[in-house]
Amino acid sequence: MKPDYGKIALARHEEWRGKFEIKTRVPVANEEDLAIAYTPGVAAPCLEIQRDVDRSYDLTRRWNLCLVVTDGSAVLGLGDIGPEAGMPVMEGKCALFKAFGGVDAFPLCIKTQDVDQIVDTIYNISGSFGGINLEDIAAPRCFEIERRLKERCDIPIFHDDQHGTAIVTFAGLINALRLVDKKLSEVRIVFNGAGAAATAVARLLLSAGAGHITICDLYGSVYPGRREDMNPDKEAIAAVTNPERRVGSLAEILVGADVFIGLSGPDAVSRGMVASMAERAIVFACANPVPEIYPEEALAGGAEVVATGRSDYPNQINNVLAFPGVFRGAFDVRAGDINEAMNIAAAHALADLVPEDELTAENILPQAFDPRVRDAVGSAVAEAARASGVARI
Amino acid sequence: MKPDYGKIALARHEEWRGKFEIKTRVPVANEEDLAIAYTPGVAAPCLEIQRDVDRSYDLTRRWNLCLVVTDGSAVLGLGDIGPEAGMPVMEGKCALFKAFGGVDAFPLCIKTQDVDQIVDTIYNISGSFGGINLEDIAAPRCFEIERRLKERCDIPIFHDDQHGTAIVTFAGLINALRLVDKKLSEVRIVFNGAGAAATAVARLLLSAGAGHITICDLYGSVYPGRREDMNPDKEAIAAVTNPERRVGSLAEILVGADVFIGLSGPDAVSRGMVASMAERAIVFACANPVPEIYPEEALAGGAEVVATGRSDYPNQINNVLAFPGVFRGAFDVRAGDINEAMNIAAAHALADLVPEDELTAENILPQAFDPRVRDAVGSAVAEAARASGVARI
Repeated sequence: MKPDYGKIALARHEEWRGKFEIKTRVPVANEEDLAIAYTPGVAAPCLEIQRDVDRSYDLTRRWNLCLVVTDGSAVLGLGDIGPEAGMPVMEGKCALFKAFGGVDAFPLCIKTQDVDQIVDTIYNISGSFGGINLEDIAAPRCFEIERRLKERCDIPIFHDDQHGTAIVTFAGLINALRLVDKKLSEVRIVFNGAGAAATAVARLLLSAGAGHITICDLYGSVYPGRREDMNPDKEAIAAVTNPERRVGSLAEILVGADVFIGLSGPDAVSRGMVASMAERAIVFACANPVPEIYPEEALAGGAEVVATGRSDYPNQINNVLAFPGVFRGAFDVRAGDINEAMNIAAAHALADLVPEDELTAENILPQAFDPRVRDAVGSAVAEAARASGVARI
Repeated sequence: MKPDYGKIALARHEEWRGKFEIKTRVPVANEEDLAIAYTPGVAAPCLEIQRDVDRSYDLTRRWNLCLVVTDGSAVLGLGDIGPEAGMPVMEGKCALFKAFGGVDAFPLCIKTQDVDQIVDTIYNISGSFGGINLEDIAAPRCFEIERRLKERCDIPIFHDDQHGTAIVTFAGLINALRLVDKKLSEVRIVFNGAGAAATAVARLLLSAGAGHITICDLYGSVYPGRREDMNPDKEAIAAVTNPERRVGSLAEILVGADVFIGLSGPDAVSRGMVASMAERAIVFACANPVPEIYPEEALAGGAEVVATGRSDYPNQINNVLAFPGVFRGAFDVRAGDINEAMNIAAAHALADLVPEDELTAENILPQAFDPRVRDAVGSAVAEAARASGVARI
């Protein structure tokens, strides 16, 4: 039987009273120490930064400091639980940033869900950080917040629920396609789910050369001008997907498809639906904790490669494979942005960590704790930042 | 010759690349660890806080976490050097919080000097902290920011430049008055300087029972309705000081005074002015680095007790004696506010650390590195919080 992680976690969190602390890196044991780390000596680095604001990356922690920030509106699968209640997740995320990327990440929860207030607040504090990781902010608000912050800030803005998911999903797909010997530009890909994560994955696949993507949601396939449950962001993704403008249910659209990517909810796909897909089908059922279809069922339906978001099945699509290395690479070259070229490079670096002779239907991605991930992703992202002109050192 | 601290500090800051880092306090080495510190286990503490927001003090770092925040408008004596340039000072302050109070303090610089934006920004992130230390914000903006944040937030808001200075100055004055055998309620106290620090010291002394305070600035004594250089905050302090409504220069007002407290600029007071004061005069010349009058001169003018802001003379009025213990005490009882009763208690605790038989004109305050300070101030502040009804545990 699986341990009751909720019960254990609650007890541990009571003992821990916080999963991080602020560690001082300099001596402050006597007058001399204080005269250097604080007044009067500290005036010199202050004036140096006043003269050239980029020197803040040399003289303060900014070069390695990431803000992990939520408004508490879409925390895990728990929904809108409020800012203070989101904090245990943010603290946990920060622990992963440090352990897997060497990044100093600080957690913040914003006490408003007004887009203007969120954007102003994050912008106003952005001068203290090297980058900003948006976390667990509900769609479609998260799109506008990310877009406006990217316009205003000169540091990377990264919404992990979108782009982290996109990177790892694409990495898995690269290797799954290798296995079944199909090409990204030729396969027919069907999504279930039209939220932030699904939209971001679809956009990254399009940027990487995917030729045929159709997105479905509770109302079936998404197409321009559909009447049910549309919004500007869904219209935008509709405009660049579903090339044949097909109208139909997920079951109808899935017939003959090569790839299914689920970022929706439990049990959305049946064994029969998988059986209706093309030969050598790929099924990524990422809803968590209950996937769109369990791996046993998908395999029984004829799928050749199956991935989920769960750690107790092979091929876990886990964001921790991406975000620590992405920020590590961005910080190492003081990138002003994290762009799609960098995300694509991260996905290829992850995929390449599974060598040809180890690539199997049950091993398309490196393990979350593989120590090679940080440097592989970091180097690739840094190089892509340089190549795309956003590196500043 | 004194070392060139600016040069040394710049070199050290280059090596350090930040005076703090984020330290993870929990294991994240395997799947099991992650299931407890992060998903899926972390949902349990999240839901617990959603149910009762006060549980954020048990289950996250909030109970010990202080925000140290500036807008960069009045950093040290450097003036308005901008938010990024204020960061080395904020990082230094955080190091002092940890070393002298065991408080986890995080530095932030706000990229706006608009009062509404500053207040909204700090309020919006206040749910992640146990308390907020405002730092190096120019007057009179600092008063309004503090006032509005105190209204909106249910955690302590403390402007150290005001209240930290007030606590330590009052502590020194308690012992200086003991030495010269005079009473706070009876002495005539003259200030030079009408800025944030001077106003706060004057208010704390009034709360503690001072009977006769007159404040002077560049235009001489401050009184209600004065035409030169007034503002609402100066009018407010004028209304409760200068009981005889005297009009005159600092030199005129100082004649016969028992106590001079300078929080202004260099060389404002001459030996002759000190000589015009009452017998057994007390001179606190706190302008930094160049005091209103150097101790040698003040003593030559007949002062009996002299204090400055400098570490190379006896009786340093140093805020580090106050703020770490004040927050330690406030955090230990989860105080909702830091009020004047707590500030007065902190001052008495500091003064009491100098025992009767060690009290001399050159030893009115404990040393900055005295390890007894933290607990003495912390306990007194916690007790005063309980007595004044702002303690929540």
